[in-house]
Amino acid sequence: MTDKKLSTESYKGVRDFYPDDMAVQRYMFEVWRMTAEQFGFQEYDASVLEPADLYRNKTSTEIVNEQTYTFTDRGNREVTLRPEMTPTVARMVAGRRRELSFPVRWYSIPNLFRYERMQRGRLREHWQLNCDIFGIDDVSADIEIILLANEIFKNFGAENGAQYKIHVSSRRLLEALYSSLDLVAETRLAATRLADKKNKMEYTEFKQQMSAVAGESTSIILSFLNADNIDVVPEQIKDTPAYTELKTLINTTNEIGCPVFFDPTIIRGFDYYTGVVFEVVDLHPDNNRALLGGGRYDNLTELFGGEPIPGIGFGFGDVTLRDFLISHDLMTTNITSPTLSILPTEPAHNIAAEKIAQSFREAGISTSIDLSNKKVGKKISQASEQFITYVLILGEDEIKTKQYKLKDLSEETETSGTLNELIAKITQ
Amino acid sequence: MTDKKLSTESYKGVRDFYPDDMAVQRYMFEVWRMTAEQFGFQEYDASVLEPADLYRNKTSTEIVNEQTYTFTDRGNREVTLRPEMTPTVARMVAGRRRELSFPVRWYSIPNLFRYERMQRGRLREHWQLNCDIFGIDDVSADIEIILLANEIFKNFGAENGAQYKIHVSSRRLLEALYSSLDLVAETRLAATRLADKKNKMEYTEFKQQMSAVAGESTSIILSFLNADNIDVVPEQIKDTPAYTELKTLINTTNEIGCPVFFDPTIIRGFDYYTGVVFEVVDLHPDNNRALLGGGRYDNLTELFGGEPIPGIGFGFGDVTLRDFLISHDLMTTNITSPTLSILPTEPAHNIAAEKIAQSFREAGISTSIDLSNKKVGKKISQASEQFITYVLILGEDEIKTKQYKLKDLSEETETSGTLNELIAKITQ
Repeated sequence: MTDKKLSTESYKGVRDFYPDDMAVQRYMFEVWRMTAEQFGFQEYDASVLEPADLYRNKTSTEIVNEQTYTFTDRGNREVTLRPEMTPTVARMVAGRRRELSFPVRWYSIPNLFRYERMQRGRLREHWQLNCDIFGIDDVSADIEIILLANEIFKNFGAENGAQYKIHVSSRRLLEALYSSLDLVAETRLAATRLADKKNKMEYTEFKQQMSAVAGESTSIILSFLNADNIDVVPEQIKDTPAYTELKTLINTTNEIGCPVFFDPTIIRGFDYYTGVVFEVVDLHPDNNRALLGGGRYDNLTELFGGEPIPGIGFGFGDVTLRDFLISHDLMTTNITSPTLSILPTEPAHNIAAEKIAQSFREAGISTSIDLSNKKVGKKISQASEQFITYVLILGEDEIKTKQYKLKDLSEETETSGTLNELIAKITQ
Repeated sequence: MTDKKLSTESYKGVRDFYPDDMAVQRYMFEVWRMTAEQFGFQEYDASVLEPADLYRNKTSTEIVNEQTYTFTDRGNREVTLRPEMTPTVARMVAGRRRELSFPVRWYSIPNLFRYERMQRGRLREHWQLNCDIFGIDDVSADIEIILLANEIFKNFGAENGAQYKIHVSSRRLLEALYSSLDLVAETRLAATRLADKKNKMEYTEFKQQMSAVAGESTSIILSFLNADNIDVVPEQIKDTPAYTELKTLINTTNEIGCPVFFDPTIIRGFDYYTGVVFEVVDLHPDNNRALLGGGRYDNLTELFGGEPIPGIGFGFGDVTLRDFLISHDLMTTNITSPTLSILPTEPAHNIAAEKIAQSFREAGISTSIDLSNKKVGKKISQASEQFITYVLILGEDEIKTKQYKLKDLSEETETSGTLNELIAKITQ
């Protein structure tokens, strides 16, 4: 032991979840799980450690170079703390492509790491619901994944249009536009990267930069990026499959009661998207940002060899969701409390309390014991603060006579009886 | 994109959890959670990343030096992937010592990392249930934590004495023995480390090594380490508080119907244990090893300053538990399947299927859709393999007439009706 005291702080940028905070996580994860399973999604998981190579191909350059936790292990392997789940799920699907029966609907709630500067809603570690459908290259899967996203919000008690809004676009549609303009790959990439930043910069500055990238195609690209409705995009892309697909998606979700809005500035940074892309944005003025984002990535499994397996999915982070629920006054926590607490009048009765507690537990009643040496009055008030329903005060007399008193703290009533009588009273 | 294909293998020594494997994890975690909450324990969590300093003090030397994943981040901080949870929970309890009302009963199911050679049941990453009671320096807490461990096994359907056995000893009792022999700190440490290895070496070799460490005290130390019953330990420690405490623990748990056995070779590697130590061992001949281990550590929070807060707890790993459940034929998996699957006769009906599915989901019926272009017969047999109860075949006619047929795959019956009639049929 050294003299220097250790800090009780967690590592920088990550969180400790004390039971109060954990109750919030549990609530959010429970709604996530329940809704995903309502749609027939099955849970999977993987390690937070992945070979660094997994992120060297399709993920956006920024993430691989500057934002991952990557280190070399003692066997000289480069290993990364996963910054996102999509490469992992693509790896797993590709690994069992022969055994799996498609369509595969999978979800997971992994923790993800990014080495980035901290700001509201952006920590170095966060948890994220990931839902993906593999094996279906059809707009019906795109529709389903957006309906699932919407249903999760509904299950949190949120209202589409009032508290959140769903924005959609299509990388395929953008590519169709580029093709109509005969743009080369390099120009497409630069224009797409720039479009991704449109809402983060001054419009005049944006126009200028786009002009430098796209030259004479600039005005048509801008007319696309400024379209606030799919009907007003440049005519030259209206007869493409990408247009039909996106229009079907918008119309169908609207019919089903899940309004979505065309927003051509939705790009989603990751290079691997190939089709529909979407975001759910928080409408609260304090949280003007995306809560959930995703899209179609039909070529990602190619990295692992074999025919590509089409995929579509989204990620939904816990930190932004928590802020959303609090800002819109939708947060519910379900902190767990035992039903009963046994309060020995002195520590000498602690062992007797353990024996009695066992009978209640075996009857299915969750039971704790206040083993401290506090006064009984203090023990009662603490039990009450902890939302415990019943207390049983255990003193000399009770141990001798085997007659116990059960106090109902919520109704402020008292019942006397044997253990079996009190068990019957609680479980009735 | 490069030409080299990426591997679909996970990082060495960690596992992928496909839905089938995840169903097993979910089952095990569910029993863990349910039982811990039955005892009034509350769930907490923390990040897998911890400052490396946290493991530099009390943890056994072997672990810090050779077995952790430790790296330096870009801010020049040394950071470790947690190899165990106890230092984290001690840090968290110490950090809120003023706000918390003791006794605190906390549990968590963290993933832990060790950089070690792989062997059966020992991977580089595993999950572990951790249950701890803080603030109580009384044998009643030791009894409770052992009862909790036992109850978990009971809830897995296992039988104490037939499939597993609980072994207990006491570091405090061992220290009392050393004190009675006037051993210096160095000798105590060496003798304790050696005792920890007793069952892994030849007895003659062990005796010889102990002799080199303990000199003339050897025979008494050996008579303690060979005692198979607490009544036959050397007389000189029978009037110590440590002896009374351990005897009370053994007698009380036996009375409550949870037999535990005195086993002086239980040391538990970690240097921080100060009192009762225990292990649950698997009695299956293929798995002759500890499933769960823990003990009392009354000084661990001292590292963070302030008065020490007594603690007792255990860790229970998923890998050894999984082997235990399989070997004893106690494994149950609860793979989740949707209640209903809608099977469009051709992809053109996929969108109609999405609309219909939404009605079922909103009625609380978990519903998936087979969006593939397989033949309907194939879709039905796959739904059956996936344990889906109902299928609804959606063709041209059904879409036109709004009359649908619901097949019950388990009973092989069929019902016709409108959506509302079929929803009523399923939810009835």
